[in-house]
Amino acid sequence: MFDPGTVLSHLESHFQSHLSELIDFASIASVSTDPAFKAEMVRASDWVAVRLARAGVPVVEILKTPGHPVVYAEWLSVPGAPTILIYGHYDVQPADPLEKWYSAPFEPEVRLVDHEERLYARGVSDDKGPMLIPILVAEAFAQTSGRPPVNLKFLLEGEEEVGSQHLEALVREQTARLGADFVLSADGAMWRAGVSSLNISSRGLASLEFRLTGPRKDLHSGRHGGGIQNPLSVMAKLVSSLHDAQGRVSVEGFYDRVTELSSAEKHAIAAFPFNDTEYLESIGADATFGEPGYSTLERQWTRPTLELNGMWGGYSGPGGKTVIPSEANAKISCRVVPDQQPEEILALVVKHLETHCPPGVRLEISPDKHGAFPYAIPSDHLGLEVARRVLLEVDGHEPIEARMGGTLPIADTFKRLLNLEMVFFSFSTGDEDFHAPNEFFRLTRFKKGLEAWARYWLILGVQNA
Amino acid sequence: MFDPGTVLSHLESHFQSHLSELIDFASIASVSTDPAFKAEMVRASDWVAVRLARAGVPVVEILKTPGHPVVYAEWLSVPGAPTILIYGHYDVQPADPLEKWYSAPFEPEVRLVDHEERLYARGVSDDKGPMLIPILVAEAFAQTSGRPPVNLKFLLEGEEEVGSQHLEALVREQTARLGADFVLSADGAMWRAGVSSLNISSRGLASLEFRLTGPRKDLHSGRHGGGIQNPLSVMAKLVSSLHDAQGRVSVEGFYDRVTELSSAEKHAIAAFPFNDTEYLESIGADATFGEPGYSTLERQWTRPTLELNGMWGGYSGPGGKTVIPSEANAKISCRVVPDQQPEEILALVVKHLETHCPPGVRLEISPDKHGAFPYAIPSDHLGLEVARRVLLEVDGHEPIEARMGGTLPIADTFKRLLNLEMVFFSFSTGDEDFHAPNEFFRLTRFKKGLEAWARYWLILGVQNA
Repeated sequence: MFDPGTVLSHLESHFQSHLSELIDFASIASVSTDPAFKAEMVRASDWVAVRLARAGVPVVEILKTPGHPVVYAEWLSVPGAPTILIYGHYDVQPADPLEKWYSAPFEPEVRLVDHEERLYARGVSDDKGPMLIPILVAEAFAQTSGRPPVNLKFLLEGEEEVGSQHLEALVREQTARLGADFVLSADGAMWRAGVSSLNISSRGLASLEFRLTGPRKDLHSGRHGGGIQNPLSVMAKLVSSLHDAQGRVSVEGFYDRVTELSSAEKHAIAAFPFNDTEYLESIGADATFGEPGYSTLERQWTRPTLELNGMWGGYSGPGGKTVIPSEANAKISCRVVPDQQPEEILALVVKHLETHCPPGVRLEISPDKHGAFPYAIPSDHLGLEVARRVLLEVDGHEPIEARMGGTLPIADTFKRLLNLEMVFFSFSTGDEDFHAPNEFFRLTRFKKGLEAWARYWLILGVQNA
Repeated sequence: MFDPGTVLSHLESHFQSHLSELIDFASIASVSTDPAFKAEMVRASDWVAVRLARAGVPVVEILKTPGHPVVYAEWLSVPGAPTILIYGHYDVQPADPLEKWYSAPFEPEVRLVDHEERLYARGVSDDKGPMLIPILVAEAFAQTSGRPPVNLKFLLEGEEEVGSQHLEALVREQTARLGADFVLSADGAMWRAGVSSLNISSRGLASLEFRLTGPRKDLHSGRHGGGIQNPLSVMAKLVSSLHDAQGRVSVEGFYDRVTELSSAEKHAIAAFPFNDTEYLESIGADATFGEPGYSTLERQWTRPTLELNGMWGGYSGPGGKTVIPSEANAKISCRVVPDQQPEEILALVVKHLETHCPPGVRLEISPDKHGAFPYAIPSDHLGLEVARRVLLEVDGHEPIEARMGGTLPIADTFKRLLNLEMVFFSFSTGDEDFHAPNEFFRLTRFKKGLEAWARYWLILGVQNA
């Protein structure tokens, strides 16, 4: 019944229209973190639901949450075949700084850069392009075979970029209908465009924001300078105390629960096709820096970190303004690794800040309650095996094993609440500037993703027939 | 010829119309630091020139500079009498943060607060109110006696809030016509509303801005976190290194040329009506803080300082954004005291930053070339003596001697280029939130200032007749 040639040639011949649809989808400014974009979030979730229904998926629902909605869909048409729960997200990072974009972030533009066609727009790589793929593949099966070769459930959320704040409650509520063999994730970038890879772990996240308030209002720095604490200076000292000069986090207890790598793991990472010089060139930085005793990949994949994501206070306009500002603010996020707990790490950082804050300013900490646990999948999992076969077919070589420095908060949610493992099968790659200006998605990867997802379902369907 | 009663009652009976004129003047958004307000700067200088001419001052000129213009005027009608050069400025500080203003910064509003009438608007205390006084007093003499009792020159500039960048060149150019007995400044706030005071010194200013650049663009803090220098962390460490934990500036050589106070000076300052508790209450801060071994007033009046005026980098919007920013920025200003040199201090700070900047980021420093020297007037100067007599007459007690923590960059310019001392005779007071939101000027002080300036000219005229 399922002829791979038919569905694959269908996908190939429809590629231009698929690209137009991605452009349409990426034109929606679905920034989840900023309330100003609420209407765009609604537009995006509607767009996804309508597109699923149009693909032929028989059950499509928009599930409300206290935040942004989740689009849920089901196509359970192959009794006895495996059921996969497809995960992705339609929300995107904020686009600022706007002035650094070469084309408007929500006016997608195909440009030929470095001899390859790329679609530029906020969210196109993370995660709208990868997320659209399984919808288009379901449609291709609908139009060529009347149904897909495996049972499908879709869970496409709108809060991934803000820590999937309401997904856990929704998964609890919907436990009964979310049963599946495993989760196949359209999120979680591959290592790079030329070498296919499979992610076997990701780091968790714990974040907070703090504000230091000194005088009740901004003061003249001539009249008052030298006599009181300047909140900016306190912020600098406080933030400095979080790392030692070598880059190791100085927060007491921060590393206590970290599992050290086995020597086999260290060897696997050392053998990974990566070198510092090329890496530095790719990001335009002068030197690597971090916790002594670890390589760059070890630091970014397997070690916990504490990073400053924003600091602000006082005057930042043109020219000078001689003030001692009333306030100074900072945003901090930590990446956590097995076996750290996000809440515990947050509590340690809060305690550090409180302990190190001097008199003369008031410290107000707003922890983000929605941390994310780290995640790792067993390396012999069926979903990984199928992914290895597919990637061998489409790329001509065995994929390499990579880890994710970033976070997929839901990996732990699915594991904990539904006992499902998660296979990362996104076709975006780590160099596509998601979370930065000029995010792009390679058209060749979009195409390859469509083919790979079709093959994945075919292999999984046959294997379990 | 000059009957004090006539001119004083003229001023009293015209007070409401004088107030309307100040409201009109303060409605002009003459923010010198921000190019967006250039047209308003032109409006303000025109307003001042027209007002001087209308007052009856026979020579009024708008002198162009490469920046904002200077309004110059002369009324030399009393051969043999002293000539005073009146200094003030029509430019104002930026009004942000706008959301902290109770009424719009450029829509002046009289409000009854703490049982006194106050005019609220940006620049009304620094320096539009004080600066308008001598113009109105000249007009009062014109209308009652046909001419003022002394010879007047007015030099009203538009760049005081940006370090009087082009005034020095202008003074050099106009040296021949700027000759006078001394400068009487309408700028330089008095200590407080209830106790009149005379400033005998001010601190100088040296400032710079720096930028740290790490990766070429903002990076995902999950993918990259832990492996490279975060420009925000480097900024924090760099800025922290500028002070020790006690608040003493750690820049090598920073205190080398500072003249220590004599024990008489220390006693005079200790006797000043000031206490830390009331001070902290007035500004809404919890504790004083600063260089060990000095009182708060000593720190703010006689010690050099290094203050952060602004720091920014990364994401500061609502919610979170997990980036390692490409850039971090800071604005720093130092107050300098005798016998420090602004350029030398700037060079020391630049050297400190360069020496302490770690590899992995690029440091770009933009020093503000227009520093200001500190200033001190001999305590037996004639202009001070007259001021003491006037303040005794209008306030009923001898003024106390205060110092200024802030800077009047031109005091040194006049001293160096014209060999003129400068008497500060402003009727704004230090608590009027200039350089902060909700700047105001007390109507009683406006009235008293008009009376005091008239008496000053009368006494000076008689004394030298």
